[in-house]
Amino acid sequence: MSAASLLFSCSMHVGVSHPKLAAKSSACCLLNQPWNHLKSKTPFGHSGVLEKSKLSHRGDEILLRAGTLHVESAPSFTVGQKFQLDDVIEAQQFDRETLNAIFEVARSMESIERNSSGSQMLKGYLMATLFYEPSTRTRLSFESAMKRLGGDVLTTENAREFSSAAKGETLEDTIRTVEGYSDIIVMRHFESGAAIRAAVTASIPVINAGDGPGQHPTQALLDVYTIEREIGKLDGIRVGLVGDLANGRTVRSLAYLLAKYQDVKIYFVSPNVVKMKDDIKDYLTSKGVEWEESADLMEVASKCDVVYQTRIQKERFAEKIDLYEEARGKYIVNQDVLKVMQKHAVVMHPLPRLDEITVDVDSDPRAAYFRQAKNGLYIRMALLKHHLPNYTSLAFNSELLYDTNLYDPKYLDNNMWTKF
Amino acid sequence: MSAASLLFSCSMHVGVSHPKLAAKSSACCLLNQPWNHLKSKTPFGHSGVLEKSKLSHRGDEILLRAGTLHVESAPSFTVGQKFQLDDVIEAQQFDRETLNAIFEVARSMESIERNSSGSQMLKGYLMATLFYEPSTRTRLSFESAMKRLGGDVLTTENAREFSSAAKGETLEDTIRTVEGYSDIIVMRHFESGAAIRAAVTASIPVINAGDGPGQHPTQALLDVYTIEREIGKLDGIRVGLVGDLANGRTVRSLAYLLAKYQDVKIYFVSPNVVKMKDDIKDYLTSKGVEWEESADLMEVASKCDVVYQTRIQKERFAEKIDLYEEARGKYIVNQDVLKVMQKHAVVMHPLPRLDEITVDVDSDPRAAYFRQAKNGLYIRMALLKHHLPNYTSLAFNSELLYDTNLYDPKYLDNNMWTKF
Amino acid sequence: MSAASLLFSCSMHVGVSHPKLAAKSSACCLLNQPWNHLKSKTPFGHSGVLEKSKLSHRGDEILLRAGTLHVESAPSFTVGQKFQLDDVIEAQQFDRETLNAIFEVARSMESIERNSSGSQMLKGYLMATLFYEPSTRTRLSFESAMKRLGGDVLTTENAREFSSAAKGETLEDTIRTVEGYSDIIVMRHFESGAAIRAAVTASIPVINAGDGPGQHPTQALLDVYTIEREIGKLDGIRVGLVGDLANGRTVRSLAYLLAKYQDVKIYFVSPNVVKMKDDIKDYLTSKGVEWEESADLMEVASKCDVVYQTRIQKERFAEKIDLYEEARGKYIVNQDVLKVMQKHAVVMHPLPRLDEITVDVDSDPRAAYFRQAKNGLYIRMALLKHHLPNYTSLAFNSELLYDTNLYDPKYLDNNMWTKF
Repeated sequence: MSAASLLFSCSMHVGVSHPKLAAKSSACCLLNQPWNHLKSKTPFGHSGVLEKSKLSHRGDEILLRAGTLHVESAPSFTVGQKFQLDDVIEAQQFDRETLNAIFEVARSMESIERNSSGSQMLKGYLMATLFYEPSTRTRLSFESAMKRLGGDVLTTENAREFSSAAKGETLEDTIRTVEGYSDIIVMRHFESGAAIRAAVTASIPVINAGDGPGQHPTQALLDVYTIEREIGKLDGIRVGLVGDLANGRTVRSLAYLLAKYQDVKIYFVSPNVVKMKDDIKDYLTSKGVEWEESADLMEVASKCDVVYQTRIQKERFAEKIDLYEEARGKYIVNQDVLKVMQKHAVVMHPLPRLDEITVDVDSDPRAAYFRQAKNGLYIRMALLKHHLPNYTSLAFNSELLYDTNLYDPKYLDNNMWTKF
Repeated sequence: MSAASLLFSCSMHVGVSHPKLAAKSSACCLLNQPWNHLKSKTPFGHSGVLEKSKLSHRGDEILLRAGTLHVESAPSFTVGQKFQLDDVIEAQQFDRETLNAIFEVARSMESIERNSSGSQMLKGYLMATLFYEPSTRTRLSFESAMKRLGGDVLTTENAREFSSAAKGETLEDTIRTVEGYSDIIVMRHFESGAAIRAAVTASIPVINAGDGPGQHPTQALLDVYTIEREIGKLDGIRVGLVGDLANGRTVRSLAYLLAKYQDVKIYFVSPNVVKMKDDIKDYLTSKGVEWEESADLMEVASKCDVVYQTRIQKERFAEKIDLYEEARGKYIVNQDVLKVMQKHAVVMHPLPRLDEITVDVDSDPRAAYFRQAKNGLYIRMALLKHHLPNYTSLAFNSELLYDTNLYDPKYLDNNMWTKF
Repeated sequence: MSAASLLFSCSMHVGVSHPKLAAKSSACCLLNQPWNHLKSKTPFGHSGVLEKSKLSHRGDEILLRAGTLHVESAPSFTVGQKFQLDDVIEAQQFDRETLNAIFEVARSMESIERNSSGSQMLKGYLMATLFYEPSTRTRLSFESAMKRLGGDVLTTENAREFSSAAKGETLEDTIRTVEGYSDIIVMRHFESGAAIRAAVTASIPVINAGDGPGQHPTQALLDVYTIEREIGKLDGIRVGLVGDLANGRTVRSLAYLLAKYQDVKIYFVSPNVVKMKDDIKDYLTSKGVEWEESADLMEVASKCDVVYQTRIQKERFAEKIDLYEEARGKYIVNQDVLKVMQKHAVVMHPLPRLDEITVDVDSDPRAAYFRQAKNGLYIRMALLKHHLPNYTSLAFNSELLYDTNLYDPKYLDNNMWTKF
């Protein structure tokens, strides 16, 4: 069984294995301990995933049906179930097998996005984009992903208003309200740790779209996906991380994920004021990942498969503008760098970029950053497909889904789950 | 004929009974007199509803067809008609029979929302959310309601820009523009009376989602619906209204609606500075509703079926912070209150809450406030279903609706209405 | 072959004629020369249209298929192709034949919007509304147009954040990201020339929804469409342009378009401080269009088919408030003006209006400004229908479009294009 089919067998059989019997109260304890110590048997959970119980009336009802289903050995379609076991909180939660599974689905999403008049896979599902700080790029790519799969979106760009100083509602109360209106929450927050708080509270899946200086796991996933798509492998790759390595959460998350592959070598190239911090270096060492610091971008570029450039973030320098200006101009990816790079190598960047990559690099086939941005769409489509019920097998009978009689409670109470 | 079927027979036969012949000019007079003196025969109109004429070309065309239909005694499907007779402006417009009808539909919405991959009942309809002040909670629940029924939404969170000081467009002009782009308008405005002005202007239904210190009728509906859902009855209930009774429009609207039921008793529990005003007390007395004021939350809690807590609104106290702090701490629903409450009783709150209900109350089954928020979805689904044409009977032939030939003008001019 | 069928034959045979082989590099050169010197054979291109090459992997793939298609002489449906040749940048790009074709489609949109439960013509397509400055009216009408045709929308009301001073991303980089998430971009920008920059960059169609003091071509189209709808002709009409003729881009664009018709006469009626500029007068003269300036609104109104009133824009007067007040009160369309106007004549206004048209004019059948606003919907529906692939011919087999097997890569690589 391939990793991808394993991934989906998880969501297909969720009713049978009953992992949601895990008590909500135990999930709440997670806040006081490393939450990834919890183990589950779902692929997404190998390195730690929140298991959610459904204590609500609705949840019990689903459980009951799933149980009946089990006895009857009928196929466990999750139509109308509208919940899932997993949240996406931090890059470290994914193990190598899960990453492979996600990437396999992401690749299949490329053909759905490119060739169809729109998939109807997630028809009837609502995603709430709960953004406590603006991030149009991230929001658009999530919303595009949902809509490309036939789902719909509730948008809140100004979610801060929910918890305004004047009104003072807690994040937890907001989540309990929003989960009543949607099937999955994609949240961007200004505070580190907000995503896990939301996930513990919600009875629907939560995807972290960036929580302050904390994590931005879907960016990390799309970065690794892009490396695999562009270079064709992850084991044995050579990656140069360039620019602001102290403040950039993308390079930090990427380092965590690369450590899951074998024979990886990472080069750190950054101005002195924004060097990679020791925690990442120690982590890489502990995982047996070779790394070195270098001040010579040209030499690193000539050796690497990937030159991962980042923006020097002016806002981190406050009034020390002279330090910023010095750091900013130090490592620029331009035609000279392209000249020493290998033919198969690529330039990546999380965007937006200023002048740390010159515009004349854009037309070189090795400029991968816009393809990288596009890969964010595929990764998010794959995550949404996994985290919401899987209609694929029903697609041939899709008109049946709109036969309202099927949703009449008296039909549902009897044999809906065995009808197909 | 049950109240609910009566409710829908109204929208089914609208073309036949021609209520839209009522002149627009008479509707305009409403601004100078109590508009709920107007009577109509639709269930929503028993206690006063705006009747709209369709003076436009489009309206005339529809009339013509409906007339033909009448002669032929064909079923009066309202496909493509895209208008309705009613607006939702204030809580008082609903009589008891109408409330029952709405609640019956709302209950049916619970199973649609829970069990299906999305209803297509309102497919092809567009709701404009015209919000002149932000209210993410209300907006999201309306938009979720529309999308759960297969409809779509045009969102304007910053509708004030329409009428900016620089440009100075009137509300009426804005409505005349927006009605051209949508099928129903859900409006939030900062001025009392804005909703009725919009309703008089628009040739499509208008739902008031709060107009300044005025009305917020859908909140009142969901409150009464929640009481019936939680307690199982409305006649004979005992309700304690707690907190800011002077400024809270929710408790005021709720008092109006409770007066429509028999043998109701209301307790007012509030700090002295924010006591219930005399107009409501007089109204209740005039309707024969028993009420009393009390300073003893524990005693009231022990007697009531519903403890309806509200937030003390800091913004009403301006610089009198000491008065605010005193009022705020006075009546808190906590474990002590839960202990004296009856087993079947519930705690409600319109949300957001600060600390007027302690967080440890949340896990008690009698904490109904998040279920109450969810009920807002069902009530709004029911209102949208009523106020937009009813496709249910066509659901089995839904694929015919997408046969473009049917929409070719030459077909439409002949016999579209009798085709089904 | 009628103009309209010619219009669509263009999009039908796009794969066969391979205009997208034109090099992207040549398109880039356009920035340094009048871009409308480029000629193409598509109807939209008679007076200058950008031809786009698809240098991406996706583009090549499409080319390949289109080529195969050509050889097999199979019908060239553009299902799933999701690209188009044309952008809408400025009013002058449209010739008379193209205008007629657009208007014919717009008229057909009136019946789709009025009579159906929503067309599914653009199902599966995503429009991004990239608004760098707010314009709720324009945004809503574009979004309504897209949704009325079954498409969906990604909304960015605060696109400026993309290019914030802190981050400093170029418009070009933003476009390259957004084009990965959507099928067409509708852009409003504060800088003149932004639309053409976006169009040159994007591999998907771009529609200019206003770029600073530059162009607002869809407003010009809807104005001319309204004149034809209301008066029944364009050749031989008499139009009075009233109000702020110096700053109003709508009257300037309208003058450009009217010059394409025969025997047109234009009257300019404006306060001295905001008179029509010489460039337009010279242009009209060069095209043989008769025009005259007049200070007598009553006389002009009595002669004209169309009195096109505009708002005096306070923001253009800065601190010269006295000049503004004088200009503002000078020419008001009121009952007196109506009395001298001919029975068939109409009053138009791009909206919003202040008091330059008195409210008592609204009820006169000759008040066309709200119908004009509504026509914006039909024009935008027509443009979207043209600029996104045309599904009409497949509508009868629409259920096949949702047969997921068709989108399985192995089917797509073989014979998808000949399947229908």
